[in-house]
Amino acid sequence: MKEFKKEAHNKVRRGAIRATYEVDKVNAILDAGFIGYVSYVFEGKAICLPMAYGRSNDKIYLHGSLKNRMLLSLLKSKAASMTVMHLDALVLARSGLHHSVNYRSATLFGSLLRLEDAQEKERALKCVVNHMMEGRWEGIRPMLKKELDGTLVVEMTIRSAAAKIRDVGVKDEKSDMNLPIWAGLLPLKQVAEFPESDALLPEGVKVPEHVMAYYENNKL
Amino acid sequence: MKEFKKEAHNKVRRGAIRATYEVDKVNAILDAGFIGYVSYVFEGKAICLPMAYGRSNDKIYLHGSLKNRMLLSLLKSKAASMTVMHLDALVLARSGLHHSVNYRSATLFGSLLRLEDAQEKERALKCVVNHMMEGRWEGIRPMLKKELDGTLVVEMTIRSAAAKIRDVGVKDEKSDMNLPIWAGLLPLKQVAEFPESDALLPEGVKVPEHVMAYYENNKL
Repeated sequence: MKEFKKEAHNKVRRGAIRATYEVDKVNAILDAGFIGYVSYVFEGKAICLPMAYGRSNDKIYLHGSLKNRMLLSLLKSKAASMTVMHLDALVLARSGLHHSVNYRSATLFGSLLRLEDAQEKERALKCVVNHMMEGRWEGIRPMLKKELDGTLVVEMTIRSAAAKIRDVGVKDEKSDMNLPIWAGLLPLKQVAEFPESDALLPEGVKVPEHVMAYYENNKL
Repeated sequence: MKEFKKEAHNKVRRGAIRATYEVDKVNAILDAGFIGYVSYVFEGKAICLPMAYGRSNDKIYLHGSLKNRMLLSLLKSKAASMTVMHLDALVLARSGLHHSVNYRSATLFGSLLRLEDAQEKERALKCVVNHMMEGRWEGIRPMLKKELDGTLVVEMTIRSAAAKIRDVGVKDEKSDMNLPIWAGLLPLKQVAEFPESDALLPEGVKVPEHVMAYYENNKL
């Protein structure tokens, strides 16, 4: 079992019983989503913004316009952290204190590199698009040289990470168990609804297989 | 129309056409969720972590254990920013460049105060619990003095904010419109599934109205 090393910045202090440093578990959380919260320091203050990402082995790919303030600021500091979380349930306990949520979250710390080579940039963008929806890159118009040139692509190499997972039922005080108070889980799930075709499609263009596969795998 | 002032840290630079500083729109985004990404600086690095929050007027309430590293570090710096985002659709364009997502996001900047008064703390925690699920606080066992004493409660006063909203269809290059490539939206939604009662409930305790109301309002 391959694990990230526990260090000052990634060691989970609170609720450490739910923490894991296993690379496979961290990757599973990353692959279950495509929006990460990336943090940076602006004028001494920490800000985080949601960004689309792709993962390939220990690399995370981010992109934006050539003037993207966050990415440029991150590149200057050469480092970044990103957090991804999936919400699975409301945990409704008998007491306020034991209210919680079931979730899977991962926080990554990595070093950053700006990709300059056109082929490397294209590979990274393919990774981002196919991370959002498997097979999408192969179903669209190939990228133009001027589009590649106008896109800032950043490669983050994961140097350390930690995941936290809560996936159990309600935990209440023993002394509260006989109270006539309802407790339980309210499961939450992000689901896909049926694809809505653009009104301007040429006649005869149908919803392709890769889109229908996504819908089938993510519908309720 | 009440607006937040545009300043260096909250002025939206990229995609400014989707930006809004209207207080009501920011509040609507905050009230549609209860998990925010709070950023802080640890040993010179920015980290963000998801936290449950409640909102009452221009106050955001956060809480944690008395030893919560992030909250203690934020209190020391007296300021914090928090981002909330709701994902509404994948925007699947004809070209990779125009792939996007429909979303509603808000980023807040605020000053922080540690609440010490027991009544104020209790009011704040009630706000957090009822922000997660309306009516839940009234349906649970009242909070004990020792539970209040053991909880760190932080009040953030929103000083500035910005929201970004994308809620339109695919935008593609004119020159791509006749390609035989499917484009469209894949709507995404966070939905609730049927409540799962704790196995240890006393006989006769039924799922209460406030839980069923949440389920009915959030099911697909």
